[in-house]
Formats: sequence, structure tokens, C-alpha cells
Amino acid sequence: MAARAMANFGLAELRLVAPRDGWPQKTRMKKGAHQAASGATHILENAQLFGTVAEAVGDLSYVFATTARERGQAKPVFAPAEAMRQSAARLAAGQGVGLLFGPERTGLDNDEIALADSVLTFPINPEFASLNLAQAVLLVSYEWMKASAGDVPPFALPAHSGPAKRETLLSFFDFLDRELERVRFFHPPDRAAVMARNFRNILHKAELTEQDVRTLRGAMTALMRGGQQHGASGPCDEAFPNEGKGS
Amino acid sequence: MAARAMANFGLAELRLVAPRDGWPQKTRMKKGAHQAASGATHILENAQLFGTVAEAVGDLSYVFATTARERGQAKPVFAPAEAMRQSAARLAAGQGVGLLFGPERTGLDNDEIALADSVLTFPINPEFASLNLAQAVLLVSYEWMKASAGDVPPFALPAHSGPAKRETLLSFFDFLDRELERVRFFHPPDRAAVMARNFRNILHKAELTEQDVRTLRGAMTALMRGGQQHGASGPCDEAFPNEGKGS
Repeated sequence: MAARAMANFGLAELRLVAPRDGWPQKTRMKKGAHQAASGATHILENAQLFGTVAEAVGDLSYVFATTARERGQAKPVFAPAEAMRQSAARLAAGQGVGLLFGPERTGLDNDEIALADSVLTFPINPEFASLNLAQAVLLVSYEWMKASAGDVPPFALPAHSGPAKRETLLSFFDFLDRELERVRFFHPPDRAAVMARNFRNILHKAELTEQDVRTLRGAMTALMRGGQQHGASGPCDEAFPNEGKGS
Repeated sequence: MAARAMANFGLAELRLVAPRDGWPQKTRMKKGAHQAASGATHILENAQLFGTVAEAVGDLSYVFATTARERGQAKPVFAPAEAMRQSAARLAAGQGVGLLFGPERTGLDNDEIALADSVLTFPINPEFASLNLAQAVLLVSYEWMKASAGDVPPFALPAHSGPAKRETLLSFFDFLDRELERVRFFHPPDRAAVMARNFRNILHKAELTEQDVRTLRGAMTALMRGGQQHGASGPCDEAFPNEGKGS
């Protein structure tokens, strides 16, 4: 699960210190680990093995020790986001940076924490401060992705069509004013200007695309026709051309 | 695991839509869920049950639909941090905000996503974009804690003693200059001023506390005595008064 969390967020180099069951693990355990890694097996296969924490961090320039609680050691304490911003800067300067995690049940001991430059911990509800190892790795890896590649979703609002041009909108608004006036929607008459403006503002908030305007205009035309001339409201048929794509 | 992740980061209100095995779950399953929740059982016990997503979001003002992939729906897309900043602002304005997660295997279907105002997704390695439900809840809950309570670790650098006063440091530096000069450490003599300055800068980088200065001065005095008058280097005995506290 920790290897998979690393792969999710762009980390690849795993170092293991004295795994309890050896490495690679016994067949049964190994299969379990590979299943949990869910495709991130390259990280398990390339994992480097060390006998002690001191050896594992030997070639690094900076080490964060991950702890859940205050451990009485005089080291700076950073939240994951700040720690990963610093890590990105150090890596850019050619320094090797390590994130040290302890065993599931016991965490890092004091001699291991003493090998680190600073402590990394989580802004967490003190009444429920228990994170398991894979969760801690997930949160730190996620902040690594944000710090190294930016906090950018892998996809954006689908561009079915570009934002409506002002002339398309104004033409639509004129159409609406005319038709709503015709059916005496703007009532009382002395409020007509305010009501028309409010109506336009409702539609502005939707940041309509060219396609959206065609869809709305087609729907209103169909309503006006009241079911007459059915089939003539062409634009509606292509209202959602990409609906369901990628689902 | 999702309930525990919520408790970790200060979320409490869980709504369940048509759980496959009913709710509360059959005894065996229920026990498993309570074990995974690891103390966060109040969230499971207070979970509200709904027959449909539409009913579950009925009293909310704004809903984020969590998806892993582009789903072809024309909705704004936000990363967790931005979504949770917006949520904190909406909640402060008295709006009810919901985070909609789909079932483990299938995710949300298109009709469910259509009930949301916007899409929430993760900045993730596209080659390893699979997060399980509990991981997705963990990341969003973590960003909720950061947005609502600040990105502040629950503990800081322990204050064994305050930062050293300038007069303490300068007295220590004078002592060092005198003793290092005496043993002819500053060599060649015309470099003495530069070497002394470099030495002071090394120590400045450590941001020494009053206690740190006493410890270093005690250690140097002990080295100078070469094992003579053992036991007179009192300050070392109290060098790490809080070591191990809270471990």
C-alpha cells in the first residue's frame, strides 16, 4: 500500500531497513505485498535493502523523520506541505532528501529520529491522531506531487465548446427579452427593466458556452411551440456531445 | 477506514446511500467496520441513511462529486486543497457543503455526478491514478483540516530552554577564541581572524539555546582536561533534560 501511494504521486525510490520477514518476502507475503501494490510492483522490485537506518540515509544530505507525537528531540517540526516544498528546493539544488518512516506499530525510536535533520508530522485531530504507515506515506507523497508538479487536477472542465461570444449572449438576451415581454412575464411593467437585468445576471452566472446558448435557445423555442413542429429543434440533439465519454 | 480518516482530520457527519449489506451491517461485517474505524465508531453510529443520492444531498447548498477520471460533464474541476478552501468559506457563510464519493469499484455514475455543482479530483500520476475510497476520503479530509484549522503541526520544536542570549554566545565565542588560540588551532596566524569568524558562523547556524551553550562549553572543558578532574563537568549531566519525554 505504501509503494502504491508512492506510485500514485510520483515517488519511486524505496529503501527498506531490516524487514522483519526478509526481502523478497516469503512467497505468501510477497504475493500479498504485490497485490496491495496494485501495479506499483516496480517500486517493490527496485527497493534497496539496508541493515540499519544509518546505512540507509548514508548518501543523503537531508532527512525528515516522520513521527505522530512529540518526541522530545530538539529538531524543527514541519507539516507535510512545507516539508515537501523544502524537499523540492533541496532536490533542485542537487541534494539527496530522505523521508524516514518507522515500523507500523512502534514508529521510529529515538536513536533513529536522532539521525534526521527535522521532524515531519501531520496537522491532525489530537483525539484521533493514529495514521497507519500507508496513510502517512500517502499524505506525504500527495504533498510531494503538489510541491514538485503543482496542485493541478489531471483534467479540467471539458471544453465542449468555447465560452459564448458576447454577441451570441446579447442576441440570446434580446430574444429572451422579446419573447418574455410577449408573454407578459415582466410584470408589473415598471419593473420590466430590473427584471430583465436580473434574468440576464442569472444566465451570466452560468458562464454559458456557445453550445449552452444553442441548447437553451432550442429548449425555449420548443416550449414556445408547445409540441408543434416537433423535430425542428435541432440544436438540442447535440446538446451534450461528450456526455459519458471517459466514464 | 473512511470513518477513521474523517475523525483524523475533524470531519464527523457521514451519510450513506443504500449500503449493499444494509445498515447497521450484519454482525460479522459490522465488527470489521468497527475495527477498521479504530475508535471512530461514533461516526459510524451517527451515520445517516438515505435511499438515493438525491435524498442524501437534499438539504445541502453545494456538492462536490469526487471522481478519478474525466467524466465528460461540464462542471468546474477542483483539486482537494482549493475545494476545501471554498468549502470552509461556504460553511462560514452558513451553507451546507457535501462531498460525494462513489462505491469502491465503480465510482459515481453520471446521474449521480450530475447532482453535484463541481468535480473534485486529485493531482495524481496518470499512470497510477487508482486511489481506493478510504484513501480518497483521507486526502480530502486532510485538506479539510488544513483549510479549516490551518496547516499547523500539533507540536513544535520542544523548548528545552530559550535561544541563547547574545551575551552568552559572545562569552562562549571569546572562550573558544582564547582556548583555540592557546592550542594553536588557528594556523597560519594571518588567517586567524577569518578562521575564528568561520568557526563562529558554524555555531550560529545551529541556533543554540542557553542549554546548548552550556553543553558545548562543558564538553570542550572536559576535552581540555583530558580526563583529569573527572566529574567536575556538571553541565553535561543536564544536557538533555527532556530526552525521551513523550516517546
